[in-house]
Amino acid sequence: MSLINKYSTLILVGIIIVLAAVLAGTLIFMYNQPPQPRAFEPLVEIAAQEPDSSKWGLNFPNQYTSFLKTGQNTIDTTYGGSSAFSHLENDPRQVILFAGYGFSKDYNDDRGHEWALTDVRETKRVNETTPGTCYSCKSANNPRLWSEMGMAAYDATPFAELGLQIDQSIGCANCHEAETMRLIVTNPALEEALERQGKDWTQFTRQEMRTVVCANCHVEYYFAGEGKYLTFPWDNGTRAEEIYEYYEDIGFKDWAYPETDAPMLKAQHPEFEMFTADSTHYNAGVSCADCHMPYVRDGAAKYSMHDIHSPLLNPEISCGQCHTNTEDVVRRVNTIQDQVYNTKLATEDAIVDAITAIKLAKANPNSDAALLEEALQLHRQAQFYWDYVSAENSMGFHNPEYVLKLLAESTNLARQAQMKAAQAANDPGLLEIDTYYPEETGAVLP
Amino acid sequence: MSLINKYSTLILVGIIIVLAAVLAGTLIFMYNQPPQPRAFEPLVEIAAQEPDSSKWGLNFPNQYTSFLKTGQNTIDTTYGGSSAFSHLENDPRQVILFAGYGFSKDYNDDRGHEWALTDVRETKRVNETTPGTCYSCKSANNPRLWSEMGMAAYDATPFAELGLQIDQSIGCANCHEAETMRLIVTNPALEEALERQGKDWTQFTRQEMRTVVCANCHVEYYFAGEGKYLTFPWDNGTRAEEIYEYYEDIGFKDWAYPETDAPMLKAQHPEFEMFTADSTHYNAGVSCADCHMPYVRDGAAKYSMHDIHSPLLNPEISCGQCHTNTEDVVRRVNTIQDQVYNTKLATEDAIVDAITAIKLAKANPNSDAALLEEALQLHRQAQFYWDYVSAENSMGFHNPEYVLKLLAESTNLARQAQMKAAQAANDPGLLEIDTYYPEETGAVLP
Repeated sequence: MSLINKYSTLILVGIIIVLAAVLAGTLIFMYNQPPQPRAFEPLVEIAAQEPDSSKWGLNFPNQYTSFLKTGQNTIDTTYGGSSAFSHLENDPRQVILFAGYGFSKDYNDDRGHEWALTDVRETKRVNETTPGTCYSCKSANNPRLWSEMGMAAYDATPFAELGLQIDQSIGCANCHEAETMRLIVTNPALEEALERQGKDWTQFTRQEMRTVVCANCHVEYYFAGEGKYLTFPWDNGTRAEEIYEYYEDIGFKDWAYPETDAPMLKAQHPEFEMFTADSTHYNAGVSCADCHMPYVRDGAAKYSMHDIHSPLLNPEISCGQCHTNTEDVVRRVNTIQDQVYNTKLATEDAIVDAITAIKLAKANPNSDAALLEEALQLHRQAQFYWDYVSAENSMGFHNPEYVLKLLAESTNLARQAQMKAAQAANDPGLLEIDTYYPEETGAVLP
Repeated sequence: MSLINKYSTLILVGIIIVLAAVLAGTLIFMYNQPPQPRAFEPLVEIAAQEPDSSKWGLNFPNQYTSFLKTGQNTIDTTYGGSSAFSHLENDPRQVILFAGYGFSKDYNDDRGHEWALTDVRETKRVNETTPGTCYSCKSANNPRLWSEMGMAAYDATPFAELGLQIDQSIGCANCHEAETMRLIVTNPALEEALERQGKDWTQFTRQEMRTVVCANCHVEYYFAGEGKYLTFPWDNGTRAEEIYEYYEDIGFKDWAYPETDAPMLKAQHPEFEMFTADSTHYNAGVSCADCHMPYVRDGAAKYSMHDIHSPLLNPEISCGQCHTNTEDVVRRVNTIQDQVYNTKLATEDAIVDAITAIKLAKANPNSDAALLEEALQLHRQAQFYWDYVSAENSMGFHNPEYVLKLLAESTNLARQAQMKAAQAANDPGLLEIDTYYPEETGAVLP
């Protein structure tokens, strides 16, 4: 071996040793670096339960600016949408159905989340006896107030007085935990209702929470006791029949129907219960957010759209998350909603007929009290099933088969109520059909 | 340049010329070959309108052998399936609903296509006055008989006499043209009904035909005039309401209800009309064959399974053509069918109550004739809407929302019938609810 070759080999071995040492040093250095944050580097710190959504917006501009649009939308769909149109003007039967109750005076369609606080303060249904409970679903101030005051004290505070501490409409704090941004149950009434069902929401998957957080508000509820304690009537289950059974068990009524004294119930907005009652979409694993807060892209950013409204206003994004040919899908939705709407009107006619008959039977001093009582009870049940469909924001689409089953049952019960009234008064003259015309029923628009 | 190099170049040029000549010759030869048959090379020639399916089976063994299974299936689903169970035993209300008509004596569930001929010959509904028309949907002999005799003569031939020319159950010739194997309308009543609607089935796409050929039989129909001419009542449209309107226009009835003389209609098996009435699956472009005759593979062969039955018996193949997770899909189907079934029973109770009341009003000599007439008319309409759902083979799944809308309407009409009867007799005692119990209604199982 020549001298040159010998030196070459030594030089090469030297280079290899130096490279290996540098590599090892690099790996040791990298291994000892602190872990990178998994999600985001916040620009500003958000206080726990921060009511002001604009502060959250500094960290999450896409979500926040899309959320702001809930205050700007005005477009309606066929049966709902973003304007505050009057249900009473659209369908004066409801003036009769809610006679004696606030909803017969003022019943406007709900607008977007940014309008919640304005609209609850402007409705004619609020008066000096209104409890603070009515703010429960209207403000991002609530989570902190519930923590500070406790829900019992919150609910027992008069609406006007509680209002002094409330300056934000629905916002980030109603669904998110500031520190982690995870989805959380913030309404104590929801947490308590789930607990009574033996459920622990902290064990739910993220996809489950994308439905459950909506149940912070989009549910059937009532005010329990003198303290007007916000309560979800779910102890027997979350179907209309089970909720009705719950109200029967505790003997609850929202108001007494004028002249007849029927113990009436007002359904609220049971979107969560309706959707989760074995609907096709729910059983297919779809969450509320999948359709109402679809993922969208803006440049490199992908985020859940927070401009929450009817998917019919942007079907290509909402329905398009799963379905191709959204034009066709919208036609199918329209077909379903038209059938629900027409069936719902027929049910209303049947209930109005029942009310007309019961009033006449009640006015007859010879009417059989027991039969009349049966008629009142049938009216109560028929109207709750109808209202459970009517007040629910989807014109049946959240669960078409269940909705139509409920309407069939409601119509049957309403006709039975009418028949019982005729039996009570022993007067077949009470069996008139389709008595609804504003001039005949004396319905007066507010 | 050396001599060797010069020869090499010449040899290479020679090789290229030879190869080019061979290639050109090959291309000319190939271009002049006769075209290959596009589809299949038949093993045997099938005569036009060949009634014997086993002959077609020589050319199409996969389709034919799977078709033979329609004679062997016995498995039931929750609400239907392949056995000939008795609807009357399952639900004795139907004995009352069909009183005075053959279906109150014998009403078994339909079995597979291979059983059609046996079952029509064995039903107790057939007697010496039965027209040949009743063979219209039962035999692969029909297309040739209709061509030879004309449908008017076919229908006017007595059932027993026509039967001498019939030896095949439903088969290949009922849907296929032998020469081309294309799907065709073979039933003249279908062709005529489509023509009256201004439709030409020869212009339909193949996917449309995969639904339309089923309408050769799976439709609502009636026998027109003394000749019992097979007629589809589609001139106003193919929805239940439009078909009812058609029967009203021509003053048609299938039978008169005992004691009351109500002019009743029997719905047949309107699967085609129900599915195409804007159902979600139909609007999504799905055909009957997609679910009931899904494509399957056997080795290299892919063919449409001809063992036609409920998709619930092989959801992984049927529903799996479009849906993943078929277990979940079946659960959704079950939920829908359960809701339809329970609503259907409530409707039946309402109609039975109406019948009970009308009978009593009819027996009362002081009843108001005009009001009683209204009650009969309401009974007729209520029962047709109910039967349109009940007789349709899918327990509502072919069009859940429409079915439930019809049941809601039927229940409403039935209660109104009862009310009219009570008004006619001026007797609120006729307003009893849920009078159905076999012992009370006098229903006797056949």
